[in-house]
Amino acid sequence: MKEIKGGVCAPKGFKAGGIRCGIKGFNTPSSPHSLHHVRASASAISLRSSIKPSSSKKDLALIYSEKICNAAAMFTTNKVQAASVLVSKENIANGKLRAIIANSGNANACTGQAGMEAARRMAQLAAETLHIEESEIAVASTGVIGVPLPISAIENKAGELKEALQSGETGSEAALEAIMTTDTRKKETAVEIEIGGKSVRIGAIAKGSGMIHPNMATMLCFITTDAAIGNDTLDAALRLAVKKSFNRLTVDGDTSTNDMILIMANGEAGNAPLVLNSDDFKTFQAALEKVCVDLTRKMARDGEGATKLVTVTVTGASSEETAEALAKSVASSSLVKAACFGADANWGRVLCAMGYAGADFSPEKVNVSFASKAGTVKVCENGGSVSFSEEKAKTILSEEEIEILISLQAGGIWGCDLTYDYVKINGDYRS
Amino acid sequence: MKEIKGGVCAPKGFKAGGIRCGIKGFNTPSSPHSLHHVRASASAISLRSSIKPSSSKKDLALIYSEKICNAAAMFTTNKVQAASVLVSKENIANGKLRAIIANSGNANACTGQAGMEAARRMAQLAAETLHIEESEIAVASTGVIGVPLPISAIENKAGELKEALQSGETGSEAALEAIMTTDTRKKETAVEIEIGGKSVRIGAIAKGSGMIHPNMATMLCFITTDAAIGNDTLDAALRLAVKKSFNRLTVDGDTSTNDMILIMANGEAGNAPLVLNSDDFKTFQAALEKVCVDLTRKMARDGEGATKLVTVTVTGASSEETAEALAKSVASSSLVKAACFGADANWGRVLCAMGYAGADFSPEKVNVSFASKAGTVKVCENGGSVSFSEEKAKTILSEEEIEILISLQAGGIWGCDLTYDYVKINGDYRS
Repeated sequence: MKEIKGGVCAPKGFKAGGIRCGIKGFNTPSSPHSLHHVRASASAISLRSSIKPSSSKKDLALIYSEKICNAAAMFTTNKVQAASVLVSKENIANGKLRAIIANSGNANACTGQAGMEAARRMAQLAAETLHIEESEIAVASTGVIGVPLPISAIENKAGELKEALQSGETGSEAALEAIMTTDTRKKETAVEIEIGGKSVRIGAIAKGSGMIHPNMATMLCFITTDAAIGNDTLDAALRLAVKKSFNRLTVDGDTSTNDMILIMANGEAGNAPLVLNSDDFKTFQAALEKVCVDLTRKMARDGEGATKLVTVTVTGASSEETAEALAKSVASSSLVKAACFGADANWGRVLCAMGYAGADFSPEKVNVSFASKAGTVKVCENGGSVSFSEEKAKTILSEEEIEILISLQAGGIWGCDLTYDYVKINGDYRS
Repeated sequence: MKEIKGGVCAPKGFKAGGIRCGIKGFNTPSSPHSLHHVRASASAISLRSSIKPSSSKKDLALIYSEKICNAAAMFTTNKVQAASVLVSKENIANGKLRAIIANSGNANACTGQAGMEAARRMAQLAAETLHIEESEIAVASTGVIGVPLPISAIENKAGELKEALQSGETGSEAALEAIMTTDTRKKETAVEIEIGGKSVRIGAIAKGSGMIHPNMATMLCFITTDAAIGNDTLDAALRLAVKKSFNRLTVDGDTSTNDMILIMANGEAGNAPLVLNSDDFKTFQAALEKVCVDLTRKMARDGEGATKLVTVTVTGASSEETAEALAKSVASSSLVKAACFGADANWGRVLCAMGYAGADFSPEKVNVSFASKAGTVKVCENGGSVSFSEEKAKTILSEEEIEILISLQAGGIWGCDLTYDYVKINGDYRS
């Protein structure tokens, strides 16, 4: 498996682009939404300033395949679903897509019938420009909820979309910029593998960040591949990959109104169509998983300066579910996050978070270590304290990337890696 | 129902006290745990300084009833339970108690067999001082997890405990100070009711604060009453009261290793013993609920300067469970909290949080208003946007106490009030 450049344009036969049509900034409320400066007290936090908008002002993205694609998708499980989610579900129902149109700056959620019409109009505008069917187009939106989508802004500029389509890095990056909102890092990746002597590529772009709560922001991820693969098989591969990546960053169910992961496969690589659970499928699936894990880590890492990247690893569990439940509970504990922030080797908080995970384990068998590039220190053995150098622990925990290693000694082979960032507040998003 | 002074010493026949025995500060790690100052960035947070220890250095509390009491309790559901929890469960098993001994500065959790022995020793020391049975004493601890309890510090000072017992406000407040850790406000309350011509009192002290996550800190609550009430009836009253108070602040299950609520009833008021579900029982239960709700609000309100108090009210639900699930989801959403913090009327986040609550409701029927003493503004009608003054909304949300009013219009009579604070980080607790 080789990492390559080009994002969603790395696989053969895909182009992408992004333009500014003026949705970002269109619906800024009249009064300025500066955050109040709050005096720090015992539990001191101050939010210094409001979120800076992404430096890019692009707000309309298009991803396009010359050939019709087999497609699969996963959508938010939120009961409140954006119009774009509903329209995309309709259009992907037959497992076929050729293009994705996506806007940032407005989520087109809680916008009623007008919102549905606006989402359909987005697909229609893209279809007209590209001379393809409206039903071959997925629609995605991200931004503020509950404000009518200024569809006229898109109508005015839709004609420029086709011209904006480009191959390679430039195209992928333009599309990526057009879906970013509060993101501070670009999330793009691509890999190449060989299947039956053919070079197969998978590329992706994403927006969103892993925050205190997984419900903090919309997550959009668009994946392209030139693999030949049926849509049911593609769907299976996507679900497996998401389970081991995004769903370990964003706890199941706590999803925004607009979350969406789409994959399109155009078969241009010329490999023999992949058969579920064959060796070739496994090679493809591993590559897809790598793409998803890479983007997950980039989401977790977003917001440099205010964050550390923490990975919780649980080993020796009696089942994968137990490992996952414990890792998630530790990873989402504010007390553990605060200890990481303070470089405080307070392992009791790790055990406490495990204790309310609702999973089965023996507290008196748990070992805990903290690790980083500065070394490893065991802080808890068999559920109790063990003598360790506080100074060494502090040095280890002062690094920007930290690992919390938990061994259950339950005789199981199961484990779970969970990566997350640990302190972030989304202050005043609409301004 | 009348609010009175005196906390746990307000009911007849109770005394309380608190002393310093040196547990606070005993196990401070060798190296200083100052927090790193983290540069604010896009999602800007800075933790200014480490937690200031409570101004009080008292760390050992005693609450004592001259007469044996009927008692009831609720304990943490965490799988990792402090030694004090295990010992208190044993001692309250017969529904009788006469005293509570509690220390702060050390949680005596994850401390193995030595921890169990230390917790039993605490009960034994109190029993010796008070000349009562060890089994008549509940034990509670709060503080750092995983550090052996310095029982010698308690042994050295236990002899002073009985002398420290006082009646009235002074006694209650001394006990309260001795259980406080990162608390910045004193949580104490008492009420008086009349039952069958007799004056009946309920008093309580508590420590803990409602934070971003309910698992943020140990919650201890000790309640006394001079009502005559059997322990099964007392248990029923306590469970009802907790369901409507603490469990609406702290989401069920996400509890620390040490959480404990104890109530002791000595019958000194001379009322006829309360019969479950009788009118007198209901009077008592309402008073107990008021005591619990009052302490819940004080917990939510802890940390002045860094917090607002937000109450989420859901009305018109088809069931109480639905109302509660939706209110909890909105109340624990970081995005909603951040919007309150920024005084940003971003009602879409309220709907989004409702959407992933796993409860049944019709998004297209939801109305949302924001309210405070500065007024009320409707921001969402029938699940969609409604025109409102951003300026007025900002003024309303800039208050320190905010209400989020949600109407489901589901034809139901059920509702739920949920009170919470919204931004707090427990930075570096051990120092």
